[in-house]
Amino acid sequence: MEFTIEKKLSKSLARAGVVKTPHGAIKTPAFSVVGTKASVKSLSPEQVASLGAEVVLANTYHLYLEPGYEIVKKAGGFGKFMGWNGPTITDSGGFQVFSLGAAFGKTISKISKEESIGDEVEEEAGKLAKIDDDGVTFKSHIDGSTHRFTPESSMEIQEALGADIIFAFDECTTPHASYEYQREAMERTHRWARRSLAEHERLSGKRLSKQALFGIVQGGRYRDLREESAKIISGMDFDGFGIGGSFNKEDMYGVVGWVNKILPEDKPRHLLGIGEPGDLFGGVENGVDLFDCVAPTRQARNGTLYTKNGRINILNARFTADFSPIENDCGCYTCSSRHGGVSYTRAYVAHLFRAKEMFAATLASIHNLYFIVNLVKKIRQSILDGNFLEFKNTFLKQYYH
Amino acid sequence: MEFTIEKKLSKSLARAGVVKTPHGAIKTPAFSVVGTKASVKSLSPEQVASLGAEVVLANTYHLYLEPGYEIVKKAGGFGKFMGWNGPTITDSGGFQVFSLGAAFGKTISKISKEESIGDEVEEEAGKLAKIDDDGVTFKSHIDGSTHRFTPESSMEIQEALGADIIFAFDECTTPHASYEYQREAMERTHRWARRSLAEHERLSGKRLSKQALFGIVQGGRYRDLREESAKIISGMDFDGFGIGGSFNKEDMYGVVGWVNKILPEDKPRHLLGIGEPGDLFGGVENGVDLFDCVAPTRQARNGTLYTKNGRINILNARFTADFSPIENDCGCYTCSSRHGGVSYTRAYVAHLFRAKEMFAATLASIHNLYFIVNLVKKIRQSILDGNFLEFKNTFLKQYYH
Repeated sequence: MEFTIEKKLSKSLARAGVVKTPHGAIKTPAFSVVGTKASVKSLSPEQVASLGAEVVLANTYHLYLEPGYEIVKKAGGFGKFMGWNGPTITDSGGFQVFSLGAAFGKTISKISKEESIGDEVEEEAGKLAKIDDDGVTFKSHIDGSTHRFTPESSMEIQEALGADIIFAFDECTTPHASYEYQREAMERTHRWARRSLAEHERLSGKRLSKQALFGIVQGGRYRDLREESAKIISGMDFDGFGIGGSFNKEDMYGVVGWVNKILPEDKPRHLLGIGEPGDLFGGVENGVDLFDCVAPTRQARNGTLYTKNGRINILNARFTADFSPIENDCGCYTCSSRHGGVSYTRAYVAHLFRAKEMFAATLASIHNLYFIVNLVKKIRQSILDGNFLEFKNTFLKQYYH
Repeated sequence: MEFTIEKKLSKSLARAGVVKTPHGAIKTPAFSVVGTKASVKSLSPEQVASLGAEVVLANTYHLYLEPGYEIVKKAGGFGKFMGWNGPTITDSGGFQVFSLGAAFGKTISKISKEESIGDEVEEEAGKLAKIDDDGVTFKSHIDGSTHRFTPESSMEIQEALGADIIFAFDECTTPHASYEYQREAMERTHRWARRSLAEHERLSGKRLSKQALFGIVQGGRYRDLREESAKIISGMDFDGFGIGGSFNKEDMYGVVGWVNKILPEDKPRHLLGIGEPGDLFGGVENGVDLFDCVAPTRQARNGTLYTKNGRINILNARFTADFSPIENDCGCYTCSSRHGGVSYTRAYVAHLFRAKEMFAATLASIHNLYFIVNLVKKIRQSILDGNFLEFKNTFLKQYYH
């Protein structure tokens, strides 16, 4: 993996660059779409590519349980398995293991079956995870069977899943944890980072892996912990960095800024699990290069659609006989003119949602992902053009009017 | 609408022809894919076109209830509403009205929620339909509200839905009905056919409709009734004919042959709701030009996939680590080589089904519809090539081995 910075801004930490992976380049800042179980829900890989996505992130925890990493390995990695030939990322498995074991507050949104089409709910199934210094024992949310992740097994699994970018195993705490527990968890994450790195080097040496390994900075919402974590993780030989999302939304920009002022400039930074429009600007301004989030597709499946004037819920009665596209000047497949100059209408998308037709999820997901992926591309362009702050102010004023 | 016959066989009633509609030609025999609620479940119109489909049939009953025919009319018809620019058909609404009001035995298959992804179950919700000579009063399966269809309202609704081919309103009986009831229902269907025709002419004169109207032959499994029905319906000025499916499977070929020997040769015949591979050969051999059926997509959503060696269930354990395509020499999107020569594997499709990913339904539906649509195309070619019977025998021997 190579990372080059094309332009840096002086008034903020924002920068535009390129991450080169064995499966192609990612122009950063970039939004990675999420294909949790080696499928971007309801979309073909061609639809994913045509909406402008450059990179897909899959979840180690989910693929480990289903279909199992040996199957994915035999298939040649999750990208090949799902027919995606571009760059790929897997997360460490940490977030899912812990989020299924503790109440994560608002970082995990529960969506009821009634409200969404084809949605898989992350159930808060009680305390299913048990942590010790060596690793985590957890129960599968599918069948309750017992499993164990360690830094070493996370590396083994992620090597099998075959992504271009993988993450060191970390403990992802709840933002409600005490300072004392955040420190304890952070220190454990540092020890696990060292073990992940060592195991990755051992596996790479043995198997010529070309995977880039990112270390994860934790420390909750505490400045001294975040700065300490950034310094310690920076000191290890990682190819890039992840910023773990254990903070409340209002603390995010502060946390990301503290961390990115310390992390080395010449390596890419991934803010894990964040993807609301406002947060993307805030993340970029504070030095983030990569984002991923299930919100655009999860909200799409609930009928919540993004427009530059804010979100709309397509199930609102006023759209029942509205024969305009979701957004008039949107260039996505759903909104743009197709054969004969006709696009899908709000009335049609609303009908599909009411009729519980699966194609509703496809059309809505394409629209929302196009919106977010291309918003980050526009942010990138504004950095190159030197008008990031104007673009940010104009966009956010209209979006959160 | 124009219908031309390109070739007729001498040893059977099979023929190859072309139906020209305002939205393009249908080369017959042809299989119409079903887009019940103005969506071929889980597929984009481009995916429908690229699998070889030439025509889409939507259900009058469903679109009348949801989103309502006024909405579809404002959208410019269901084809434009859903983004399908090719030929279109709507059924009369009769089958759904009656199938929701009576136990139809094996002509309606109940599929449980557990077995399928995104499937809408036709519930046998007791006697919801009440028939009189003027029409049918029925309750919506969605909200229990009361509605009424008459031959005149069916024409009005189908004109609003805007398909190229529409059907006269008919009474679709259960195959278990007595001879006496079949006669009574048939005679009512004949009266309704005349009223449908009159109303269609009135609407056409007033509104320059270019829709072709097909009359439906009923009469259950009784030869005298079917022959009487064929004669009477033939005597009316329809553009083509439908053969109602009120018979058990073992009676089908007989019924279809009796009817098609009487129906005028120069008009197309649609066998309603039939689409199993063996039945397609039997139908064509007995003079059928058009088919439609939800079986290929409904079975696809259950993981039942068609191959030339018969059906397989992709959830079978032996496919878990099977990295070959569903069918090796299949030309469908799912099976054929894409970028880099890799197709979706059985292991991947099986994983998607187990993981309840919506894209499972898309891949499986494309495969099954491609199989059926192209099987009928091959049957057509075998008629043109003069080797229909050989093709039939070879295919069926392998399929039902």
